[in-house]
Amino acid sequence: MQDLYLQYVAHMQKKADVDFSIAVLSWDKEVNLPTKGATARSQQVATLSGISHELFTDEKFGELLEKLHTNKGQLNDKQARNVELSFKKYLQTKKKTTEFVIRSSKVISTAYHAWLEARQQNDYAVFEKALADIIEIKKEEAELLGYKDHPYDAMLELYEPDCRVKDLDLLFKDVREQLVLFAKQLHEAPQVDDGFLFKNFDKDKQWQYGLDVLKDMGYDFEAGRQDLSPHPFTINFSANDVRVTTRIDEHNFGNMTWSCIHEGGHALYEQGLPMQEYGLPLGEYISLGIHESQSRLWENNVARGLPYWKANYKKLQQLFPDNLASLPLDVFYKGINKIAPSLIRTESDEVHYHFHILIRYEIEKGLMEGSISTKDLNKVWNAKYKEYLGVDVPDDNQGILQDIHWAHGSIGYFPTYSLGSFYAAQFFHQAQKDIPHLVDEIKKGNTTPLLDWLREKVHQHGKFYTAEQLCKKITGEKLNFRYFMDYAKAKYNEVYGVVV
Amino acid sequence: MQDLYLQYVAHMQKKADVDFSIAVLSWDKEVNLPTKGATARSQQVATLSGISHELFTDEKFGELLEKLHTNKGQLNDKQARNVELSFKKYLQTKKKTTEFVIRSSKVISTAYHAWLEARQQNDYAVFEKALADIIEIKKEEAELLGYKDHPYDAMLELYEPDCRVKDLDLLFKDVREQLVLFAKQLHEAPQVDDGFLFKNFDKDKQWQYGLDVLKDMGYDFEAGRQDLSPHPFTINFSANDVRVTTRIDEHNFGNMTWSCIHEGGHALYEQGLPMQEYGLPLGEYISLGIHESQSRLWENNVARGLPYWKANYKKLQQLFPDNLASLPLDVFYKGINKIAPSLIRTESDEVHYHFHILIRYEIEKGLMEGSISTKDLNKVWNAKYKEYLGVDVPDDNQGILQDIHWAHGSIGYFPTYSLGSFYAAQFFHQAQKDIPHLVDEIKKGNTTPLLDWLREKVHQHGKFYTAEQLCKKITGEKLNFRYFMDYAKAKYNEVYGVVV
Repeated sequence: MQDLYLQYVAHMQKKADVDFSIAVLSWDKEVNLPTKGATARSQQVATLSGISHELFTDEKFGELLEKLHTNKGQLNDKQARNVELSFKKYLQTKKKTTEFVIRSSKVISTAYHAWLEARQQNDYAVFEKALADIIEIKKEEAELLGYKDHPYDAMLELYEPDCRVKDLDLLFKDVREQLVLFAKQLHEAPQVDDGFLFKNFDKDKQWQYGLDVLKDMGYDFEAGRQDLSPHPFTINFSANDVRVTTRIDEHNFGNMTWSCIHEGGHALYEQGLPMQEYGLPLGEYISLGIHESQSRLWENNVARGLPYWKANYKKLQQLFPDNLASLPLDVFYKGINKIAPSLIRTESDEVHYHFHILIRYEIEKGLMEGSISTKDLNKVWNAKYKEYLGVDVPDDNQGILQDIHWAHGSIGYFPTYSLGSFYAAQFFHQAQKDIPHLVDEIKKGNTTPLLDWLREKVHQHGKFYTAEQLCKKITGEKLNFRYFMDYAKAKYNEVYGVVV
Repeated sequence: MQDLYLQYVAHMQKKADVDFSIAVLSWDKEVNLPTKGATARSQQVATLSGISHELFTDEKFGELLEKLHTNKGQLNDKQARNVELSFKKYLQTKKKTTEFVIRSSKVISTAYHAWLEARQQNDYAVFEKALADIIEIKKEEAELLGYKDHPYDAMLELYEPDCRVKDLDLLFKDVREQLVLFAKQLHEAPQVDDGFLFKNFDKDKQWQYGLDVLKDMGYDFEAGRQDLSPHPFTINFSANDVRVTTRIDEHNFGNMTWSCIHEGGHALYEQGLPMQEYGLPLGEYISLGIHESQSRLWENNVARGLPYWKANYKKLQQLFPDNLASLPLDVFYKGINKIAPSLIRTESDEVHYHFHILIRYEIEKGLMEGSISTKDLNKVWNAKYKEYLGVDVPDDNQGILQDIHWAHGSIGYFPTYSLGSFYAAQFFHQAQKDIPHLVDEIKKGNTTPLLDWLREKVHQHGKFYTAEQLCKKITGEKLNFRYFMDYAKAKYNEVYGVVV
């Protein structure tokens, strides 16, 4: 059986080599590609994707997986878990016929161009038919993949394995009932000022500062690098080559800083995955929600916290004396935690952010079950923004057309963003319990104990545990919205001076 | 038959997608790779190389090629040439068994590490055994591939198709008899001064200057980019994405400048290849010699010429006034054309360069035919340097260990460098005949007529012609050393004020 397992590993690693090659081509596309090179590059990525798919769906490989799966008892725990997850994915992939895959990618390609055109015209009507087709094909995909309770479950499974509508319904009920109310209370307090963030911050200095921030977090520059790209992202070609990108806005200090820390959190997870499990499920992240928990824990729980800035604010004042020398730390701290309802998800603060997701969750679920139609969906969108955020959406570009996800065929992706914040709060709460002097260390600029804790509790395991198992193992209970709510209340009552 | 041809094209382009993906991974390795990423990257490249090899040696593809080859009459000229070349390469590749390929790559890998170790110890003896193994496997390869007159012919074929020992014997006889004598005459003239090249030249200014030089040559930055790497090179992922790299030495102005122009020449060739022949022989360069003719024509015939600097010297003086403002053009021109015998090939001038190649040619040929042994080969090397260049080699690192080529298993590669210069001289001579005001245009800073001529005469054809056919088509005769000799005499007699 060990011989068969080694065959399985070799095949998986071959596929991983192809997949990571695609990742290199994609990174290069975002960071370096000269304009005329785009057509050939798309073709090259498509060819490698085809080869990767052929490798994974190879019948003989399927037989090997089945044999290993049947004889899991002869493998050790980690091996058995790798086989279990690979076999599950193999069966899932095999459910989609080549005809379906081709048809699906055509629908998505058409939708993407329709979305671009609709953005151009600032008119949802131009996108509506394409979105309807996306939903149709996603329903078909859900039927192919199978589900127990709700067709949307099959979509969630693609991004957040084992996460179901019944779980999310409970979570978002809490968001709707507790967080919306809390935000409304905060609106009544006097607003804090963040104008200092929008003064002129020299680009080169920002760039150097971003590198220092990553280094301080423990990001290993011998196993990665940072570059510029229009949209910040993290990508990995192995745990030993995990790259981040950022963007710099001279007139918005927060833009680069929090993107560096956010992507840095993602990157620390990838750098902490076990290299010896290269190409295998145990060498991969658990789910998008858990991935996002790592970025948000660093971005929000750590780097928007007062202890972090107690350690770092002086350095920042020295770097940008014109802007910050005379600004007291507590004013800075409040400014970087200003919250206000807004139209655009990606520009939202960490409280209102979840209303944006709540709205998308309700719509996606409704579309998949048929209780909501794509017809005049912008009106549904706008009504929900009015209800939850109290804002009037002036046009479709600032409303339903703002995100690329649906045009990319990603249905079920959005909820993982909120899951990330909720897991982050629960994990960070536990970290403070497990590491007695954690906050004191952060105040001293030392986040190593936190990184060590994350390495031990989360990173090293790869996909060995499910998200729920991991959460229980670390915190003693499954995901509980209470931790996020407690965190938000404590912090924002302080920032807004609300008497509890 | 057209249906079969389209199948052939699709298969070749699939293979090209994989090969160009390898190129992207290799470019990234030289330009960006964090140190710890090296191991996984090698594995990824090895996997893609294996996939490319499988695609090309696929039996069914072989049958398709054979059928097309048998029915070439039903294809148009270009199609027939593509098929002819692909079939030739297929048969050549098939001659090597997998066992041989694996054994060969092990010998090379061992040799590479032995060479590194020998460099470390500055001792050829450490490398000798490995080199002997390289020669043994290369002799075996020559027997597998087949040849008519000389086993070295089989090696030359890999880099310079249709080029034979009997051709090179004649060429290098001319080098030995004419160029060596000419160089000795020049040594008797007073030496020119190039000290100004080694003053301090600001790195950022050099970088910007290099970009301008490339732009002026006609290099298309929408279909390529320049980056820094330890060793300058040109690489392409399609004719629409051709990248160059350079290096900058603050205390050696020539280092970057001529590398930019040299790589720029290579890149113009690649950018000029027909995109519609992507992945097919007609979308590829003819041979390394013809490729090198493009880089050397720009580097030496154009950019080390007085007309080029009549157009560009003022700009350079303005950029580096401290170093050049008071230096007259003719002194600058002579300085950048200083020649002197030296130990290191890559640092050699355009006259003595060919003695370095002559020596390597004689040694490689001797090793392949058995008239020279690897035993004490450093002594043979040193004696030849004494004979042709009049220099004493102080140690192996500055002698036989200086080049990586043999350690990489590249036997038969070196002569293509000289072929490049000789073709360049012959082509540039013809260009001046074909374009009446060419030199006047270059004096005005306009090299567009030259680029247009190269595009029409060389680039657009890809591999449609052999090197010899192309040379005859352009210049009316096959490669003739006389053009290089005439060029060298005219230029260096002027530079060194020798009365002819």
